[in-house]
Amino acid sequence: MTYYVNTTLRTAFEDAVARTVLALKAEGFGILSDIDVQKTLHEKIGVAFRPYRILGACNPKLAHEALQLEDKIGTMLPSNVVVQALADGSVEITVIDPVASMQAVDNPRLKEAAAGVGQRLKRAISNIVE
Amino acid sequence: MTYYVNTTLRTAFEDAVARTVLALKAEGFGILSDIDVQKTLHEKIGVAFRPYRILGACNPKLAHEALQLEDKIGTMLPSNVVVQALADGSVEITVIDPVASMQAVDNPRLKEAAAGVGQRLKRAISNIVE
Repeated sequence: MTYYVNTTLRTAFEDAVARTVLALKAEGFGILSDIDVQKTLHEKIGVAFRPYRILGACNPKLAHEALQLEDKIGTMLPSNVVVQALADGSVEITVIDPVASMQAVDNPRLKEAAAGVGQRLKRAISNIVE
Repeated sequence: MTYYVNTTLRTAFEDAVARTVLALKAEGFGILSDIDVQKTLHEKIGVAFRPYRILGACNPKLAHEALQLEDKIGTMLPSNVVVQALADGSVEITVIDPVASMQAVDNPRLKEAAAGVGQRLKRAISNIVE
């Protein structure tokens, strides 16, 4: 089982981040967290790493439904979207498949909800255009 | 397979958050994201929800190792810790088991790394005292 859906853009890194945020917004996802991995690894352990951002995407209505179905599911929220620079100069955007990450959660109704979230995330990714 | 480890404290909500952050710090985890679910649901969709925070815990060295083993694993980072108020007045702290959330990732070396992170997270949780 693959745990993500991804796409690749030939554009500047920050432009790819901006397009990703817009595409997620069009499917009702806001960004609740934004981790700059390159900056964090440099500051904390002095490691040089490629541009790599982790955006935490959340559709509040769907998150509320999930929390009502499974009170500890916040351990797997929000839905992460990685934007990373590739060696060939392109930028890869990868979104988690919540059905895969929630595989270990024994809750059939949550799995249905996760499938709905996953469909929206996939649609967002497929709508990012160069 | 359970996907979390949890504990319960009889203390004020903010005190539970502070103790959780300290216990994680003692195991080398910093907090890279902090989502106030109660506030977010109120602001975005007008829903009243109990105090519920999602802390994103990251040990930079272990995160760097994981990223080198699996370039898209940022979709499952950082390790989330939920602090939530229970109806009986106590506060529950729940940490993700990364072995469970990364179950769908077909990468044996990553699974080993995830087990090491999980052990540290469990130790942090078990060291939170009232």
